Amino acid sequence: MALRTGDQYREGQSKIKHNLYINGNKVENLQDNPNTKTVLDANVKVFDLGLESQYDEIMNVVSPLIGGKVSRNVHPSHSAKDLEMRAEMAVLTSQKLGTCNYRCPGCDAMHATASATYEMDQKLNTEYHKRFIEWLKYIQKNDLAVSGGVMDVKGPRNLRPGEGDPDHYLRIAEKRPDGIVLRGARMHQSGAYAADETLLVPGVSPRPGEEPYAVACAVKNSQEGITYIAQYNAMSAEREFMGDNSKLGNPTYGQRETCLIVFDNVFVPWERVFMCGETEYAHKILLRFAKQHRMACGGSCKAGFIDLIIGATQVLTEYLGLDKAPAIRQQITEMIKVREISYGLAIAAAYRGEEEPKGSGFYLPNDTFGNAAKLNTCDGFWEVMKWAGDIAGGFTVTMPSEKELENPVTKPLVEKYLKTNASAKDRMRMTRFLQNWIAGLHGVGTWHGAGPRQNQMIMLYRDTDLEQKKQMAKALAELKD
Amino acid sequence: MALRTGDQYREGQSKIKHNLYINGNKVENLQDNPNTKTVLDANVKVFDLGLESQYDEIMNVVSPLIGGKVSRNVHPSHSAKDLEMRAEMAVLTSQKLGTCNYRCPGCDAMHATASATYEMDQKLNTEYHKRFIEWLKYIQKNDLAVSGGVMDVKGPRNLRPGEGDPDHYLRIAEKRPDGIVLRGARMHQSGAYAADETLLVPGVSPRPGEEPYAVACAVKNSQEGITYIAQYNAMSAEREFMGDNSKLGNPTYGQRETCLIVFDNVFVPWERVFMCGETEYAHKILLRFAKQHRMACGGSCKAGFIDLIIGATQVLTEYLGLDKAPAIRQQITEMIKVREISYGLAIAAAYRGEEEPKGSGFYLPNDTFGNAAKLNTCDGFWEVMKWAGDIAGGFTVTMPSEKELENPVTKPLVEKYLKTNASAKDRMRMTRFLQNWIAGLHGVGTWHGAGPRQNQMIMLYRDTDLEQKKQMAKALAELKD
Amino acid sequence: MALRTGDQYREGQSKIKHNLYINGNKVENLQDNPNTKTVLDANVKVFDLGLESQYDEIMNVVSPLIGGKVSRNVHPSHSAKDLEMRAEMAVLTSQKLGTCNYRCPGCDAMHATASATYEMDQKLNTEYHKRFIEWLKYIQKNDLAVSGGVMDVKGPRNLRPGEGDPDHYLRIAEKRPDGIVLRGARMHQSGAYAADETLLVPGVSPRPGEEPYAVACAVKNSQEGITYIAQYNAMSAEREFMGDNSKLGNPTYGQRETCLIVFDNVFVPWERVFMCGETEYAHKILLRFAKQHRMACGGSCKAGFIDLIIGATQVLTEYLGLDKAPAIRQQITEMIKVREISYGLAIAAAYRGEEEPKGSGFYLPNDTFGNAAKLNTCDGFWEVMKWAGDIAGGFTVTMPSEKELENPVTKPLVEKYLKTNASAKDRMRMTRFLQNWIAGLHGVGTWHGAGPRQNQMIMLYRDTDLEQKKQMAKALAELKD
Amino acid sequence: MALRTGDQYREGQSKIKHNLYINGNKVENLQDNPNTKTVLDANVKVFDLGLESQYDEIMNVVSPLIGGKVSRNVHPSHSAKDLEMRAEMAVLTSQKLGTCNYRCPGCDAMHATASATYEMDQKLNTEYHKRFIEWLKYIQKNDLAVSGGVMDVKGPRNLRPGEGDPDHYLRIAEKRPDGIVLRGARMHQSGAYAADETLLVPGVSPRPGEEPYAVACAVKNSQEGITYIAQYNAMSAEREFMGDNSKLGNPTYGQRETCLIVFDNVFVPWERVFMCGETEYAHKILLRFAKQHRMACGGSCKAGFIDLIIGATQVLTEYLGLDKAPAIRQQITEMIKVREISYGLAIAAAYRGEEEPKGSGFYLPNDTFGNAAKLNTCDGFWEVMKWAGDIAGGFTVTMPSEKELENPVTKPLVEKYLKTNASAKDRMRMTRFLQNWIAGLHGVGTWHGAGPRQNQMIMLYRDTDLEQKKQMAKALAELKD
Repeated sequence: MALRTGDQYREGQSKIKHNLYINGNKVENLQDNPNTKTVLDANVKVFDLGLESQYDEIMNVVSPLIGGKVSRNVHPSHSAKDLEMRAEMAVLTSQKLGTCNYRCPGCDAMHATASATYEMDQKLNTEYHKRFIEWLKYIQKNDLAVSGGVMDVKGPRNLRPGEGDPDHYLRIAEKRPDGIVLRGARMHQSGAYAADETLLVPGVSPRPGEEPYAVACAVKNSQEGITYIAQYNAMSAEREFMGDNSKLGNPTYGQRETCLIVFDNVFVPWERVFMCGETEYAHKILLRFAKQHRMACGGSCKAGFIDLIIGATQVLTEYLGLDKAPAIRQQITEMIKVREISYGLAIAAAYRGEEEPKGSGFYLPNDTFGNAAKLNTCDGFWEVMKWAGDIAGGFTVTMPSEKELENPVTKPLVEKYLKTNASAKDRMRMTRFLQNWIAGLHGVGTWHGAGPRQNQMIMLYRDTDLEQKKQMAKALAELKD
Repeated sequence: MALRTGDQYREGQSKIKHNLYINGNKVENLQDNPNTKTVLDANVKVFDLGLESQYDEIMNVVSPLIGGKVSRNVHPSHSAKDLEMRAEMAVLTSQKLGTCNYRCPGCDAMHATASATYEMDQKLNTEYHKRFIEWLKYIQKNDLAVSGGVMDVKGPRNLRPGEGDPDHYLRIAEKRPDGIVLRGARMHQSGAYAADETLLVPGVSPRPGEEPYAVACAVKNSQEGITYIAQYNAMSAEREFMGDNSKLGNPTYGQRETCLIVFDNVFVPWERVFMCGETEYAHKILLRFAKQHRMACGGSCKAGFIDLIIGATQVLTEYLGLDKAPAIRQQITEMIKVREISYGLAIAAAYRGEEEPKGSGFYLPNDTFGNAAKLNTCDGFWEVMKWAGDIAGGFTVTMPSEKELENPVTKPLVEKYLKTNASAKDRMRMTRFLQNWIAGLHGVGTWHGAGPRQNQMIMLYRDTDLEQKKQMAKALAELKD
Repeated sequence: MALRTGDQYREGQSKIKHNLYINGNKVENLQDNPNTKTVLDANVKVFDLGLESQYDEIMNVVSPLIGGKVSRNVHPSHSAKDLEMRAEMAVLTSQKLGTCNYRCPGCDAMHATASATYEMDQKLNTEYHKRFIEWLKYIQKNDLAVSGGVMDVKGPRNLRPGEGDPDHYLRIAEKRPDGIVLRGARMHQSGAYAADETLLVPGVSPRPGEEPYAVACAVKNSQEGITYIAQYNAMSAEREFMGDNSKLGNPTYGQRETCLIVFDNVFVPWERVFMCGETEYAHKILLRFAKQHRMACGGSCKAGFIDLIIGATQVLTEYLGLDKAPAIRQQITEMIKVREISYGLAIAAAYRGEEEPKGSGFYLPNDTFGNAAKLNTCDGFWEVMKWAGDIAGGFTVTMPSEKELENPVTKPLVEKYLKTNASAKDRMRMTRFLQNWIAGLHGVGTWHGAGPRQNQMIMLYRDTDLEQKKQMAKALAELKD
Repeated sequence: MALRTGDQYREGQSKIKHNLYINGNKVENLQDNPNTKTVLDANVKVFDLGLESQYDEIMNVVSPLIGGKVSRNVHPSHSAKDLEMRAEMAVLTSQKLGTCNYRCPGCDAMHATASATYEMDQKLNTEYHKRFIEWLKYIQKNDLAVSGGVMDVKGPRNLRPGEGDPDHYLRIAEKRPDGIVLRGARMHQSGAYAADETLLVPGVSPRPGEEPYAVACAVKNSQEGITYIAQYNAMSAEREFMGDNSKLGNPTYGQRETCLIVFDNVFVPWERVFMCGETEYAHKILLRFAKQHRMACGGSCKAGFIDLIIGATQVLTEYLGLDKAPAIRQQITEMIKVREISYGLAIAAAYRGEEEPKGSGFYLPNDTFGNAAKLNTCDGFWEVMKWAGDIAGGFTVTMPSEKELENPVTKPLVEKYLKTNASAKDRMRMTRFLQNWIAGLHGVGTWHGAGPRQNQMIMLYRDTDLEQKKQMAKALAELKD
């Protein structure tokens, strides 16, 4: 089967009876709710980008599994070049959407699962990898949208899995002859309700004795027992009730929409189970997901977002007649610096990517550079928000509604007084776009996507060979060991 | 007349026919619109705080002008101690409101006007100070709420006043025997539509030849020719349409609400005109307003806001069982550091306040410490947001609607899966409160309130005696001059 | 007896047979060694500053103990105003010396000892305070230079006092009828070998069972059993061997000179013992010393140092013709910002100082503001170094010797090629002065003086009422407790 | 001819009669002066590293020019892989020397010259490239050490070349039939006096009319008219006079040694002249040098230095028993972060290197990533110094001389009291090593090597396509252009 168009994807979704709630209400058809519709539209755009010839190298790749062209979103990388294009895909979709490519975590979960199941089959004589590859071929052949599910709800953080409510971490509640039964919930799930399937991988490193929590498998959207509860905030309310998306910050694609997925005795047949109790490999799959996701989500995706912030800021700078001011250029350059460091480190992570495990054919990026990229993004994104707000001014948060331009009394006043080098309308439009970036959800979201800063710090420390550095210092200090 | 109660203030406002627009609609009674009502409620709270004996020293003072107790909001400081209490009032109202004390800019404009008009009367033989004192006595006697209006809309920033649209800076369009006629507009006006009066002072330093822009005067709420256009954003939409304020971030007092005020041939009688064309003093009044406002708004007010962020973060830390973790305590302490630096510098600015001009009886804070306080707040507030978001987690931006707790299907799921050491309900409530601070308007707003960072940098440079420092260095380097 | 002149102090020192070693050699007369001489000269300058009428209010005070004027260096503060002048003294001596006022830790140790011994006498019915006051009167009457000794050598940091070498923390080795015998060593002792006496206070908080480590007392310079071992580094070597101090960075007063003091069975008679085993009060004396020292050493002293760095940088900026460049002014302002924040917080700490314990008559600064001041200095001083180096350029570290100006071959070349708006000689002189600040010992020294950053972070956390902040947040979030 | 050994290089240098001055004295043989000897020794080490098989891929390459193996130090890169190995060489030599690979600027100047002369020959029909290649073959065949000379002394920065002293920028004073005559001086020249030759390229972008300043050429060490004046500072004095290098911070290789080179009518024959008046290409050669040097010197070299700082800090952490403390690990990780960001960006710059100009066969790294690497290093290196100083403690700047260990009186005291988990001797040795990094010349030196921060900021701004970013933002904001 060929790559799907956006419309084909949309049609596919319309056939699913979604078990989704938002703001206390049920949504069975994503098209019907202005907030869930943004996820649909974003996915449509990603499908359509794959059909534009100029983006072909970035968005698509010939799969060695099915021997034909597939979306890179469902392709675990087979080379460093693949990883580089994976990073570029993240930049591109961010630039084109201003929100998530909702297939991104799924793609990275595939990288981790391909690598870890290969190793399990080799070492434990399991059939996980074989099953995973079969499932993946099906996904590729049908060009399905797959989200990735990693983050457990956890409950109190000082409890291990199973110590509190046993369902606070996703678990195998029952093993049956034909498959397993899942219980638990995953949170922060980007656009999961608009995917065709979700690939679930461990979000914790279970220890021996915690085997029920070592699970990886694929589930179908809204299959029996699954409930989605969507995020909701001021931006959601505005989109739900304003009745005019064109006046919103990101009119078509909106916020990064996430949800809570509850698994209430969800049955998964064995051919869709890719890990079942192997705690050691749960740790590996988690680490490999993190490694991959820090490059893509932590590094390159955010470079695309920052491009939009820089672009909007520059537009406003020109509207305000400030684009020649040295102090302004300095701040623009500070934003560029953050962008290029994260992007460059993502590229370095890809370029230094390696086959893991050896012989598997699957590549993962360099962990150190990926962690460094994400660390730069964490603090840097807040810096970017800060400087953009500095330049764009207090108006970013004090602007009136664009609806004043439809009121005959206030229209002339707004047009006269909010005009700069651009019309009041254009200025308000671009300011609103920037507001969406710097006075909303993105600071916190960017920090925690691919894990909070401290996680990367810990990995960076672990990945460093301090002994070697000690020896270098001792050698030069002429200190006998 | 005694200090008014909140109810008396509210009743006063109900008698005004407001000429106010929000989201394209007119609002004549502030009580009728859920967004404008927050300003009313915040003002009510400030009036009521003034009647609580425990806050009497902070909120009130015996005015030497009328010989009785008045609200500190309408009292230009007569001592360093007054300035210190002015700073404490800002801390207190921030802690109690989680939004502006909307009388704050008016109070600081009074400080600047009292000082500059005194100097004008002394040096130019004018009657401005006499008029201002008369007006101020009237304000004090009637315990009126006065907002301050400083920031012109400006248009393209590379044009001087008068070079583009002449009305882009507030100006005297006509001098008449009985008064002046104002044209122009002021933006970022915090809660102006809920004040009884607005004290307008120059927001630019007009040069000789730009006399029409050197104007200070008092106007009444919604007097003929005045139109208010309120800010509007996602939080406004949510409050307007959700129909349940209890689920919002700051349920009662909401966002910092500002507006654009348009002056379309507004007549001001001479007894309310406190400057009319004296460009040199326009510069002075602006600098003195900035000096005062950086201590109060830039320094101490934000300390109160940060208290709320720290408090909410600490609550969530305990809910999540993370309050003993060293890394978490470190981040909490980073927030405390920002808070105490801004607060300490505000106190130092007050303590080192001086009578200005000598003999006037009016005190202004130390400019250097005030600028330092604001500079610390600018970068620091973003830091605080960053660390609070780090600790509170991605849930701050991915949480579902609290309305799920009213849906019988999702209620048990949410209660089970979002529970931590606290109930899902309490956790969601406090997370939503924090969301309001770190995923909304406050970063940009705090940066620009009392002027953006670069303004303080410029003042700091100007206020520094580099020659003295050069001499010290040369003396020690034993370098002959 | 009146305030001593610098010469009188110098003469006093010449009568002491110092038991001091530096670079492996013994120095009995401080005047004989170019490095130890700098400490003598710095102290002379501080004595002489006390006799200049313009500095009288800062440097001197009428002691309520002896009823006459004494140096503020030997005066525990009796009011907030005293504390403010104490802070100002630190600014002034830093500006005039470019190194330590070596009596500073002694002065702050007096503050802590006065306060804690008062409390001991009250609560424990001891005579420590009485003894301390008698000793202090003697110091004041004879205008002696007193250093303060706080920091134990400690050994491995994971061991408690007594767990490793018992002497790694200063301890009471023996109690005798006539006094105590000390063993141990103190490090980082600023200029101790040039003081008349040293006031020793606990540098650790001993627990019950660690009583020998709860000791405070006064010892005389080089009394039997005391050995001083001076610090030594490249700057020391240069001063020792170059034979021409005029070409050094700080020609007269040099580096901050410290030493290790070893106590090998040093006898201290009871009248000089101010604590002997009271572990609870050892903790209090340490905290109070820290509180006082963070204001003085951490906050205001470094403001004086930064003045010198700013001054030198500004001179070089003008030499290079860069003083009008916006980017340069911005960096100068960044340095000013650091300076004013630390200074302002020191002033706030003094102003909010309180009598401690109540009734004692002795004042200590506000702990929170003092810690905030020090925290700002820690990171800020490195920032200042960075920006000064940015502006002054690579020449700061690549400049040739000023001795080239005495070589007939290289003199004309240097004069021609290193000339800017100033002569090569002046440029080299001022660059060398700045080199001393930004390419030497000051970064690390400033960080650790008054304790490393983490100590202040811990205190800031402890001093904060998180419960109160939690309640504020809950109140606004309308969350029942 | 084969690669030279260190000894062969040393012998070569011994045959040169150096025209070098240091601290006012002439040094004809580098071996004779303890400071100049460090440069010799460092170069010897680099030659010897080239002969170690484990480093062969990094240190050497088969030159397409002479068809045999040459040192990478004299090889302009012919591929992205070459650039990557160039970056790795910088890491390696930094780790092994703790100071400059003094052939680094020469190597990068070769990159720029190869590229720009190729373009000149193509576009201007000159013979510069042909000459350069001939010279380079000679260098490669003889395995000579070549330094690079870029930075003019400049004089007042507000004057253009020629406006002040005409010699303040290196210039062609005369064109003769057989060659050109140089006048001027270059400063900050790393180890130039120990090179066999120096490749001079423009350090400024001369405009039309400033042709004499557009010059590139090669000169021989100490050829007629050349005088070297070495840097001198406290560390130089210490090494000169202490008579025991083993107790210095970097015992063998010392500081980064630079010098001023004066050109007093230096004749350069045409075959060694690679640019003579082509102002447009002077700009290009400068930019290309910067591009190359920011990757190598700004990015990867400093990663090697930071490795040494981390290593030393870790050693001391273990000596002090602090290596398990979470706060300490966090700081170590902060240092690692700085290291890996600079390194990763250098690798990304190399990997994204491109042939420039097309068809030339010569590769230069990606400019944006190189600038980003250097920017990270600028601020980051000071951060690293700060954290290392935090961990290693005040002892880093207060330690006594290691010579105390040779004095029978102080030896036992030092051994007893400065012992931790390591002997006092080992602790002092490693602390001294670290002192060299964090209390000396490196902060300023690292900032300015490859140009100060502001230069990179300017290039980053120039290299950014803001129009593209504006279009992206407008597209999403649905704003018509």
